[in-house]
Amino acid sequence: MKDTIQLHKDSFLEELQEFLKIPSISAIADHKEDVQKGAKWVANSLEKTGMEHVEIIETDGHPIVYADWLHADGKPTVLIYGHYDVQPADPINLWETPPFDPVIRDNKLFARGATDDKGQLFIHIKAMELLMKENGKLPVNVKFCIEGEEEIASPHLGPFIENHTEKLAADAVVISDTSFIKEGLPAICTSLRGALAMEVTVKTANTDLHSGVYGGGVPNAVHSLLSLLDSLHNKDGSIAVEGFYDGVPEVTDQLREEIAQIPSDEVAMKKELGLTALFGEEGFTFKEQTGIRPTLEINGISGGYQGDGIKTVIPSEASGKISCRLVGEQDPQNIYERIEKHFQDHLPMGTTLTVNQFIQAKPVSLDSQNPMIQKAADAYEMVYGVRALFPKEGGSIPIVEVFARVLEAPVVLMGFGLPSENLHAPNEHFHLENFTKGIETVCEYFTSL
Amino acid sequence: MKDTIQLHKDSFLEELQEFLKIPSISAIADHKEDVQKGAKWVANSLEKTGMEHVEIIETDGHPIVYADWLHADGKPTVLIYGHYDVQPADPINLWETPPFDPVIRDNKLFARGATDDKGQLFIHIKAMELLMKENGKLPVNVKFCIEGEEEIASPHLGPFIENHTEKLAADAVVISDTSFIKEGLPAICTSLRGALAMEVTVKTANTDLHSGVYGGGVPNAVHSLLSLLDSLHNKDGSIAVEGFYDGVPEVTDQLREEIAQIPSDEVAMKKELGLTALFGEEGFTFKEQTGIRPTLEINGISGGYQGDGIKTVIPSEASGKISCRLVGEQDPQNIYERIEKHFQDHLPMGTTLTVNQFIQAKPVSLDSQNPMIQKAADAYEMVYGVRALFPKEGGSIPIVEVFARVLEAPVVLMGFGLPSENLHAPNEHFHLENFTKGIETVCEYFTSL
Repeated sequence: MKDTIQLHKDSFLEELQEFLKIPSISAIADHKEDVQKGAKWVANSLEKTGMEHVEIIETDGHPIVYADWLHADGKPTVLIYGHYDVQPADPINLWETPPFDPVIRDNKLFARGATDDKGQLFIHIKAMELLMKENGKLPVNVKFCIEGEEEIASPHLGPFIENHTEKLAADAVVISDTSFIKEGLPAICTSLRGALAMEVTVKTANTDLHSGVYGGGVPNAVHSLLSLLDSLHNKDGSIAVEGFYDGVPEVTDQLREEIAQIPSDEVAMKKELGLTALFGEEGFTFKEQTGIRPTLEINGISGGYQGDGIKTVIPSEASGKISCRLVGEQDPQNIYERIEKHFQDHLPMGTTLTVNQFIQAKPVSLDSQNPMIQKAADAYEMVYGVRALFPKEGGSIPIVEVFARVLEAPVVLMGFGLPSENLHAPNEHFHLENFTKGIETVCEYFTSL
Repeated sequence: MKDTIQLHKDSFLEELQEFLKIPSISAIADHKEDVQKGAKWVANSLEKTGMEHVEIIETDGHPIVYADWLHADGKPTVLIYGHYDVQPADPINLWETPPFDPVIRDNKLFARGATDDKGQLFIHIKAMELLMKENGKLPVNVKFCIEGEEEIASPHLGPFIENHTEKLAADAVVISDTSFIKEGLPAICTSLRGALAMEVTVKTANTDLHSGVYGGGVPNAVHSLLSLLDSLHNKDGSIAVEGFYDGVPEVTDQLREEIAQIPSDEVAMKKELGLTALFGEEGFTFKEQTGIRPTLEINGISGGYQGDGIKTVIPSEASGKISCRLVGEQDPQNIYERIEKHFQDHLPMGTTLTVNQFIQAKPVSLDSQNPMIQKAADAYEMVYGVRALFPKEGGSIPIVEVFARVLEAPVVLMGFGLPSENLHAPNEHFHLENFTKGIETVCEYFTSL
């Protein structure tokens, strides 16, 4: 199979570059047609592999692409999920080559979406094509469910899954949208934090006021916001919202050991990111803090005068954006309500408050001992010569929890990216070694099932 | 004199409208030539009144206009100060008629600079013209010192005064750049708060970080800023910076009584501004808080993601703008250093700090019993039928303290504006009743000296 992949590599890469030329940015309304184009490209590509029942399913947002091949009687069914939408390319001026003009340098393919997730999704399409070519059939039953709204938190895929449990029923859901630990060290992520985001706005007057005339005698919206937001954390780095930690699993020695086994280099990380100190909840290592503990981060604040120099106003309005990462049994809706209550309880005099909720995703934890996951680790070992590790990731892929819960199937997060590939940032790229080895690993995995 | 003023009113207003058509915005570099034009217009106008030694004095910024008439032997010398520069006109779309296209409606003259300060300055030019016409001479010796940088905190006038004490020497400095208490109730301000402004910027990393991957384990620049800025105030509204209150005068019963005599309507003010509560240092009335107590206000904050929706980043940089109003013997440089030390003492782990200072002005207090001030009150009484009150204003006119200290002369803040005239805001205007009565008052005052 390795030789066959090498034989087709150049034509595969030409195809992938075509795919990457489509600026299918789901967050930007002006790109709606490009996102549609992305869906068509995926449907076309699946058609060519020999997949059947290829459908472009319209939603109130961007379409879902479905396809299947269900002729492997008595064999398990695998649902492959991926996404054809990409992040915005801003700031454009920091790209060395244009984001939608794919270029290969040093055996890396540079383009927006190269690793997230067009390149990784394309691994599966090409793996199916090669398996089909070699054997005239697939070793397992396969379903594809590819969305165009992952970068905007999958607002329509969740309900689609809930409403199509039979159509999507599978023995495993396979997703390649995560990263290795580092080059040469594959990983199957077994835990993702949940997420919750909101915006809080405070008002104190109907207009900004002159700080000379009114200063000292009227409330200041920025002061109110500061006091509200600063009350969310305790001095020891823990979160002060009452009941926030309900449902957070106890950290057992076994869990700590498991986490400690995942290599990480915090000295190098500090240097690379220009951090003078790490920071966080007391009593936990960096990997524990970012992997299995919940967070509350303020992602942005604004209020009053923000131009050059000074304007001596008393701001009448200020706002902050907040997001949480959740773990274990923490429920996003419950946490949202508790934060809202915390705000009401701590509201400074003369201040009114509005809170808007943006996204919600439940945390998910996967059993690394599940045979569908262990066989994926076997496949990595066969191709890379090293067994995959099972890290607990701090990020969130909201749809993973929905797949696991609604389809009652193990989700296998077999990523082929690298942490250094500038995900969501300028100069995103994908290591082509992992593209070809990725196709090989997926073929090995599906054949082994 | 009243009749003469009425006779010339229309031609005076035509001239004033010409003056107001010049967009002499000192803060905006593109208007540098307009500011020059403003200086020439003032010089020309002074020349026409019969003033002598008219000079346009260039500085590293905008010019100062000087003129004098010094032939009233044995009489006192009055220095008239004013400014021909204006505030920017933004937001333009909120103006009912264009800011530099003066229009009279309801006996009010609408234009940027109408009350601050072109209209009030023009009162003095026309008063001198009429006095000169009637008597062929002036009742006192007069010097004009008119600047073009008041709205940008007078960076060059201070040093100019220090270096030209003989040229500017006077028995009183008269300034019309303040307001009545309300319509029909004139005021001579006898206290101005000092000012101090700075920007503080904190950094925690060399780039914003993904809140999933790093959240919980690294410092967040917005959290650091919140914690720093929130530490500046105590729960009772007082300022927590060590030594901040050094030099703040004790509030005597006499002072409280004096302040209580100035009428104010806080219920109406709350309604007008949409305030649900007042706020401030405990144990002081609103007028005390804004008139004789120092403040520390945060004028603006920014950091992290501020666009629509959410972006789950950990901000690496955040900044806040801060200004203080100072009273009594508080020294701006000393307060600046104490705030800087407070920041260093409260700096959260993993955070670096830079502080930039913008403006500094010392507080000033004037003796309402000084005869030069009492005679101004007499003149108001003669024209308006009501004696001027002596309020303590919360705002700052930095140059007032310099005039008082360097020239060792009483400063007479005889304003003709109204608090409702949209100073620094769209639809700035000037009540024409106070324009004509203002000329009359100034003539009465100068004749009485």
